[in-house]
Amino acid sequence: MTRTRFHQNLDDLKEKLLVMAGMAEQAIQRAMEAYRVGDLSICDLVVRSEPAINRMERDIDQRALDLLAMEQPMAIDLRFILAVIKINADLERVGDQAVNIAERVRDMHNLPPVELPVDIPRLATMAATMVRHALQAFIDADPAMAEKVLLMDDEVDEMNRAVYGALARSIETMPQHSQSALNVLLIARNLERVGDHATNIAEDVIFWVRGADVRHHLHTAS
Amino acid sequence: MTRTRFHQNLDDLKEKLLVMAGMAEQAIQRAMEAYRVGDLSICDLVVRSEPAINRMERDIDQRALDLLAMEQPMAIDLRFILAVIKINADLERVGDQAVNIAERVRDMHNLPPVELPVDIPRLATMAATMVRHALQAFIDADPAMAEKVLLMDDEVDEMNRAVYGALARSIETMPQHSQSALNVLLIARNLERVGDHATNIAEDVIFWVRGADVRHHLHTAS
Repeated sequence: MTRTRFHQNLDDLKEKLLVMAGMAEQAIQRAMEAYRVGDLSICDLVVRSEPAINRMERDIDQRALDLLAMEQPMAIDLRFILAVIKINADLERVGDQAVNIAERVRDMHNLPPVELPVDIPRLATMAATMVRHALQAFIDADPAMAEKVLLMDDEVDEMNRAVYGALARSIETMPQHSQSALNVLLIARNLERVGDHATNIAEDVIFWVRGADVRHHLHTAS
Repeated sequence: MTRTRFHQNLDDLKEKLLVMAGMAEQAIQRAMEAYRVGDLSICDLVVRSEPAINRMERDIDQRALDLLAMEQPMAIDLRFILAVIKINADLERVGDQAVNIAERVRDMHNLPPVELPVDIPRLATMAATMVRHALQAFIDADPAMAEKVLLMDDEVDEMNRAVYGALARSIETMPQHSQSALNVLLIARNLERVGDHATNIAEDVIFWVRGADVRHHLHTAS
């Protein structure tokens, strides 16, 4: 395999990962749409999209492994392939979070409607923006953009603490709606985990481009 | 580097990963001990152990990367190094879950004590056993043992659903203790995530040894 052919393969791998990213992002968007309008058919759509995301994950891992095995990549190419493998796993888990949210929305469908004092769509927008920026950093090989994602994670954690406090108070004042409040609490946690995955992706981009391991320096993400 | 020297390096990498595993397992055990006896000094110990776990993760990743870069490993050695990189990330996140649990225990310390109808220590034992078996499968290169871990994950998920239902009912009947119930709910989720990480480790062992990608066949883990 010539050097050029190898780099064509790396480009194809990047392209595939971006398709995977699109699938994961769509799953989260749909889960939030299902939450917003309480639509069970959208929940089904999210749950049914999971096998395709899982297949895509396997396909990307196999290609990455083949590239690692076929020739001895240079340091930066090696780090790129490893970044793809790690980002791929995080995207699959973003898809899992979408499924978890869809299941919570299904659960809430049988409960009496209630207005809770938390802005879940705002939290969702924040988490989705983190994923988008992390992927943009990956597309542009832009560690400065990736660093912005790391800073956003603290904001999401802060919003989540506020959501938690507000829901705990709601449960005390409206115990008859505690099941709905618990579901919303778990959705907030799922969105926080989406933010964590975006943070992981951002760290992988920085490591790929800069080579130095910045993890846990600026920030300790889960 | 001779072939033998290379394999000595692989053995050293495995050894390091087992030290990392010991640190992560200890963090979970301590977090559960803090929960059981309500001891804030143990919570501090768990939180303070996180930087050491993070340093160890970086060290292992760097060694794995050096081994990938230095020579062209055979297929099974390549899969072993990739498994180490992935298992390493999962162990670091097990440590994060221990920190999350310790933070919940701190929160509960200021709340009035209450007996809730859920057996968190049992769930913790189950999750810790999954991690232990997944690591044993890694030590012995034993995919049959790893498959047992995948089956245990369904049991943990089932236990978690029961915990969720019991806590939702407690909140309705004892709204004055809803904050404690919420903390316990989040601890149960953290333990479920520990089980998920054990599942990931088990899948990485199977992939390393067998080469075929079994993920999402037996089971879809998050």
